[in-house]
Amino acid sequence: MTGKLTIIGLGPGAPELVTPAAASALAEATDIVGYGPYVDRVPFREGQRRHSSDNREELNRSRHALQMTSQGRKVAVVSSGDAGVFAMAAAIFEAVDLGDRAWRDLEIEVVPGVSAMFAVASAVGAPLGHDFCAISLSNNLKPWSVILDRLHAAAKADFVISLYNAASKTRPDHLAQAFDVFRKYRTGDTPVIFASAVSHPDQKIDVVSLKDADPSRADMRTLVMIGSSMTSIISRPEKASWVYTPRFRKMDLA
Amino acid sequence: MTGKLTIIGLGPGAPELVTPAAASALAEATDIVGYGPYVDRVPFREGQRRHSSDNREELNRSRHALQMTSQGRKVAVVSSGDAGVFAMAAAIFEAVDLGDRAWRDLEIEVVPGVSAMFAVASAVGAPLGHDFCAISLSNNLKPWSVILDRLHAAAKADFVISLYNAASKTRPDHLAQAFDVFRKYRTGDTPVIFASAVSHPDQKIDVVSLKDADPSRADMRTLVMIGSSMTSIISRPEKASWVYTPRFRKMDLA
Repeated sequence: MTGKLTIIGLGPGAPELVTPAAASALAEATDIVGYGPYVDRVPFREGQRRHSSDNREELNRSRHALQMTSQGRKVAVVSSGDAGVFAMAAAIFEAVDLGDRAWRDLEIEVVPGVSAMFAVASAVGAPLGHDFCAISLSNNLKPWSVILDRLHAAAKADFVISLYNAASKTRPDHLAQAFDVFRKYRTGDTPVIFASAVSHPDQKIDVVSLKDADPSRADMRTLVMIGSSMTSIISRPEKASWVYTPRFRKMDLA
Repeated sequence: MTGKLTIIGLGPGAPELVTPAAASALAEATDIVGYGPYVDRVPFREGQRRHSSDNREELNRSRHALQMTSQGRKVAVVSSGDAGVFAMAAAIFEAVDLGDRAWRDLEIEVVPGVSAMFAVASAVGAPLGHDFCAISLSNNLKPWSVILDRLHAAAKADFVISLYNAASKTRPDHLAQAFDVFRKYRTGDTPVIFASAVSHPDQKIDVVSLKDADPSRADMRTLVMIGSSMTSIISRPEKASWVYTPRFRKMDLA
C-alpha cells in the first residue's frame, strides 16, 4: 500500500467554508492528525484513526505524520484556515527537509483553504482590498527585534496588516508595542479590527480606532487587523459599519 | 421584494475549490455580475441573468450591481480567488461610499474564497509559511513611486512577497524593476515562483532563482512570488521540487 500525506486547510470554522477538495481528502484518509480542536472539526468516520496533539507540537506531529505515510497510511494533517499560513504545511516541509531523505519520495499534497484573514475581511467589508501583509507576533520562532523591524517597515510602507498570534500569556505587551509602532505612522482614526471565532456561532468582531485600540481585547484566538492610511469606514444607521480599503482613489502620498 | 448583493470569491479555478457557501449563493442569485471569464465559470441556471463586462469596468460594474440590488434583485458579483484581494469587494464598497446614501441600507454579504496566492503556495509546498505580503504592481491605481517604496520596504524587512498584476502590455518593465529591487536585498539563489492558471487544467508553475528570473516569463495571468531569505527548496530526484518558508528555525539576522 502506497501512503499519501494530504495537508488540509479546514477554513475558518463554518462547514460551508470547507472546500469539496478538503472534504474528499478527509473522507479518503485513514488517519487524521492535528491540533485537538481542529481534529474535532473533522466529521467522524468509522474506522478512521484520530491523532490529536497540543498546539506547540508541530514538528513532532509532522514527523509522526510522515512516519505513518511511509508505512503506507493515507494521512490527513489538518489546520484551521489555510494550511499554508502560519500553520502545518510549512512545518511538514521543514520536517521533510531536516529528516529522513526517503521522505522526499512520499506523495504530499496541500489542499488550500479559506484563510482566517480573508474570512475576517469578508465579515466586515473589504479591508484587504489593497496591498497588505501578514505578520506573526509570536517570538517563539523569531527574535522580537525582527518582528519590530517588520512592523515598522509595514507601517511606514502603508500596508494593511493582519497580526497573527497577536496575544499570549507569555508576551502580554507585544500587541501594545505593535500598536505603539503604528501610532507613529498612522492617524488615531485608523480602523483596527479585533476578530475572534470568525464564521463560528460565537463570532465576535469589533472595529475601533487606533487611538482607542486596547491590546487587552485580544486573546489567543484573536486576529487583529490594522488599516492603511486609505482604509475607510462606511457608517450605517443602526447597523454595523463596513470597513474597506479603496482600490480606485489614487493615493496622494508625497 | 428585498434585494441582496453577495460578493463571491470563486477560488482559483478548480470546481472542487469553490466553497459550498459560494455555490449556494450562486444558486440563489437572480443576476450574475462580473468580468466575462469569471461569469463564464458560474454553472448555468435557467432564468438567471448574466451580466459580463470588461476587466477595467470595476466601478461601473459595482454601480450597476448596486442599482439592481436596490430594485430588489438577488445579485451575485463574482471574482476569481478571494473577492477581497485586489478584486470586486473593495470596488463595491468604494461605490457604496461614494454613491447614493440609500445603498448603505442594502444587504451586502461577502463570501470569502480560496485566494490565488494560497492556491499557488499549496501547489509548490508552503512558501507563505511565514510573514508575507501582497503587492499589486498595477500603477493604474497608485503612483509607481509608491509601489517602488513598498517593494523596497518589503524586501528589506524580509517578507515573502506575492506580486499581483505583475505584467501588462502598458508597463512591460515594472516586473524587471521589482526584481532589481529584490536583488539589492536577497541572494541570487532566492526562489522565485511564476504561476499561471493555478488549479486549472493548463496550470503552469515554474520555480527559478532570483538571479535567473526573467520578467518576460510573466503575462497578465501570472502571479509571481519571491521568497524571503529563509525560503528553501527541497530538491527531489525526478520530481518537482518543493518550496517552503520555515517556521521553526530561528532567524539569525544581525
